Amino acid sequence: MTSPISFTALPGIGEILAGDDLAGIACAAFSRIPLAVRNGDILVVAQKVISKSEGRLVHLGTVTPSPRALELAAVTGKDPRVVELVLAESREILRAKPNVLIVRHRCGFVMANAGIDRSNVQGEDVALLLPLDADASAAALRDALQTRLGCRLGVIVSDSFGRAWRHGVVNVALGVAGLPALIDRRGEQDRHGRILEVTQVAYADAIAAGAALAMGEGAEGTPMVLARGLSWTAPENNGQALIRPLEEDMFQ
Amino acid sequence: MTSPISFTALPGIGEILAGDDLAGIACAAFSRIPLAVRNGDILVVAQKVISKSEGRLVHLGTVTPSPRALELAAVTGKDPRVVELVLAESREILRAKPNVLIVRHRCGFVMANAGIDRSNVQGEDVALLLPLDADASAAALRDALQTRLGCRLGVIVSDSFGRAWRHGVVNVALGVAGLPALIDRRGEQDRHGRILEVTQVAYADAIAAGAALAMGEGAEGTPMVLARGLSWTAPENNGQALIRPLEEDMFQ
Ligand SMILES: Nc1nc2c(ncn2[C@@H]2O[C@H](COP(=O)(O)OP(=O)(O)O)[C@@H](O)[C@H]2O)c(=O)[nH]1
Ligand SMILES: Nc1nc2c(ncn2[C@@H]2O[C@H](COP(=O)(O)OP(=O)(O)O)[C@@H](O)[C@H]2O)c(=O)[nH]1
Ligand SMILES: [Mn+2]
Ligand SMILES: [Mn+2]
Ligand SMILES: [Mn+2]
Ligand SMILES: [Mn+2]
Repeated sequence: MTSPISFTALPGIGEILAGDDLAGIACAAFSRIPLAVRNGDILVVAQKVISKSEGRLVHLGTVTPSPRALELAAVTGKDPRVVELVLAESREILRAKPNVLIVRHRCGFVMANAGIDRSNVQGEDVALLLPLDADASAAALRDALQTRLGCRLGVIVSDSFGRAWRHGVVNVALGVAGLPALIDRRGEQDRHGRILEVTQVAYADAIAAGAALAMGEGAEGTPMVLARGLSWTAPENNGQALIRPLEEDMFQ
Repeated sequence: MTSPISFTALPGIGEILAGDDLAGIACAAFSRIPLAVRNGDILVVAQKVISKSEGRLVHLGTVTPSPRALELAAVTGKDPRVVELVLAESREILRAKPNVLIVRHRCGFVMANAGIDRSNVQGEDVALLLPLDADASAAALRDALQTRLGCRLGVIVSDSFGRAWRHGVVNVALGVAGLPALIDRRGEQDRHGRILEVTQVAYADAIAAGAALAMGEGAEGTPMVLARGLSWTAPENNGQALIRPLEEDMFQ
């Protein structure tokens, strides 16, 4: 029988500030749970605390909205300074209507507001941007954790995404290190010997989504979740493997 | 400290046939795992075995493609008889191009091929349709399980969905009974007292996505997964709560 897959929120983490050592904070938090971290464990970390530790805060008082930002702010009803930041973080605006601004982020993510939001962010008139490069953030945190702990780990930087045709957010993987973000199962046989023709599995997205059940979205204060019991044979790839390239986009 | 959330695949389930008693099969499978089922557990069941048990198989030899099906089959390169079934199951065709046919299913799901596929389906020239009403399937299975086991359970009927802007499939919840499919957290305070303005959580989708890590997509033979450790205070609603209505669709 296969062992269960489990998600455990790490307790006792305080407000994360620019420059904080997330590997050290994670290790301190590991010591508070009854599980000893071991090979194959995956740490899922909220985008928000990665961004905070990397100092991706912007004081809105320092932002001057461009004419385009003012225009989109009028359409969406959003703060023009936040819209200015969204524009600066985006390659393309996909949809704008009251309360909605969907963009293609410079890293390829199609998402609302370029991932900029103000919930769980300390201070008035402060916005928090996505990490500069979430895959690099995941890889750096993984290296630091592996050095400290002496075991082989995976790291996922997760974020909450809305969906075009379904209500509610689910978490997905922005940055991935030490595991396959996407697993290509094409060519395998199904139960009856038929070849799987199209199946690729968004493995890191599924882990991020499951971890969100332990992480929460509000005041829980649990931005790190340990995932255990996963195993794979597929090659590692990073969060960019999950991005459908522009030329495949049928919903531009 | 909160207890971990876990997903355990139920072993020893055979090929499901029309008329099979899934509650009985689930109970037999529960007896093979070391966990005793208890109040608050959630059973996640693959759409495919729900459909099989409900006899949603169609022999393609019995299907005559309409002119519209022939036309879409030529565009997509798909079997015209399968396209005919897709049309019959759909309200609207959203996109058709080589290898891709995205529709709005009669139950509201925006998905590829109206959920009809032939992997893990026994027999040549046989296609399997989605359950007639996945919420009703979930509710009926829940009732049967609760009667047999004498405890309060949730049931989710899951299926694998592709995404418009991301590679790979993740599982989502088609049918839900005994838990909130969607949790509305608007009005709650975040860590710093700021009101959450937009946060609704696709709770059952996250559970389905996490369960898929234990369920698999290929020959694993594990169509039922027990989810444990979840708790909620939000009111119950069903899979239809996850469907964004047509009038909110910005990507038609
Ligand atoms: N301890 C702690 N938790 C935080 C901090 N920032 C966010 N969180 C928690 O991280 C989780 C995810 O928060 P959310 O705002 O949804 O982050 P996102 O999904 O990465 O955008 C929730 O449990 C928050 O309470 C922080 O600085 N410290
Ligand atoms: N035991 C058993 N497993 C099945 C059966 N049909 C599908 N599965 C398993 O159910 C899981 C999900 O299969 P998949 O084809 O992805 O189903 P879907 O996501 O519901 O469309 C995999 O582990 C399959 O091997 C069946 O009739 N019996
Ligand atoms: Mn975020
Ligand atoms: Mn979140
Ligand atoms: Mn399916
Ligand atoms: Mn599947």
